[in-house]
Amino acid sequence: MQNKSENGVSRSVVNRLPRYYRALRELYRRDKLRVSSGELAKMMGSTASQIRHDLNCFGGFGQQGYGYNVVYLYKKIGEILGVQDDFGAVIIGAGSLCRAIASGSIFTRRGVKLLAIFDCDSEKCGKSISGIKVLPFESFNSFCTENTVDIAILAVSAEAAKDVSEKAALAGVRGIWNFTNTELNINDEKIAVQDVNLGDMLMTLCYEIKERKNEN
Amino acid sequence: MQNKSENGVSRSVVNRLPRYYRALRELYRRDKLRVSSGELAKMMGSTASQIRHDLNCFGGFGQQGYGYNVVYLYKKIGEILGVQDDFGAVIIGAGSLCRAIASGSIFTRRGVKLLAIFDCDSEKCGKSISGIKVLPFESFNSFCTENTVDIAILAVSAEAAKDVSEKAALAGVRGIWNFTNTELNINDEKIAVQDVNLGDMLMTLCYEIKERKNEN
Repeated sequence: MQNKSENGVSRSVVNRLPRYYRALRELYRRDKLRVSSGELAKMMGSTASQIRHDLNCFGGFGQQGYGYNVVYLYKKIGEILGVQDDFGAVIIGAGSLCRAIASGSIFTRRGVKLLAIFDCDSEKCGKSISGIKVLPFESFNSFCTENTVDIAILAVSAEAAKDVSEKAALAGVRGIWNFTNTELNINDEKIAVQDVNLGDMLMTLCYEIKERKNEN
Repeated sequence: MQNKSENGVSRSVVNRLPRYYRALRELYRRDKLRVSSGELAKMMGSTASQIRHDLNCFGGFGQQGYGYNVVYLYKKIGEILGVQDDFGAVIIGAGSLCRAIASGSIFTRRGVKLLAIFDCDSEKCGKSISGIKVLPFESFNSFCTENTVDIAILAVSAEAAKDVSEKAALAGVRGIWNFTNTELNINDEKIAVQDVNLGDMLMTLCYEIKERKNEN
């Protein structure tokens, strides 16, 4: 329910930054060096004034009559987002969700290195998923001592969520990406928690379908 | 970038409704019949005034000095969200993400029935995932004619996203749950689109970790 990030920028602006980052990467790939707030708005289904407002939250990078320098803005937003910060991540739970997350290219593109996968099931341990070895969860703590694990990705059952998240917090991770459909109640302000509750998302989608139905 | 849902309720309130729904289910399971905005706030890491504000958007269901009737509020929010509306859904793309989505219990609990899974790969067709048969994607259109398919869940590659989403729109689905990490540009206001961009979420998490690091 926190609506502001730590530096006072609203959560909704922060949530839009990755989309700016993707739009700018696309422009960069098309060899476009400059972009106006109007063009950027069109790409993102937004308005020029919102673009200017959002980018102003971070000091703004535009020049009137010139627009934004694509490369500069792309790099700058990447810096703000921490793309070059080389975060280390592990996935806990080696099921189908783990396979789905590990198989894409979401990590390397964003400066995140997937270091290991953990599971309690001894049959899964020793096998590899997308080239990453599955280790026994009992070695999680010592792994965190020997490696810099910034992010723990929780892909375990709802029942295991609380226990695993507490162990991750104690092991010193700085962020938890929670796919367990469960509230974690981590009471440590130094740890960032991002919940991905697919059930909640599905309900929101149903609500929006229903709204449209009522209108037509 | 749309910040209001169709009926003028802000997107952030709508996004919180499923959490209310879950909290109320939990209270119901504990045989609790009444709850104050303060208690509900505590459960959700929110404030009593936000709870009252949110629930007022939908007409409010509380009585001063009494609090909220748990069963009534649970049912009412369920109705608002369309939980009993019996939506039919299909997943397109029978990979590990499909397995992860289909294996949980997210559908039945929310009044959504998973009707079929489609894939282009003939090796996958005919097999079952979580008891649901994988059908060839070429039969998708005729399936939609013969069945009420409200929701298409896109679990295909980014490259296939645009084509598949256009086919789903033409086939008359009313909602698209998009896991492809790609913007779809569906220009039909009657179709609700919910994007789940895991890459964007990961970047937002990295940003929040970075913010906390800068503070400490």
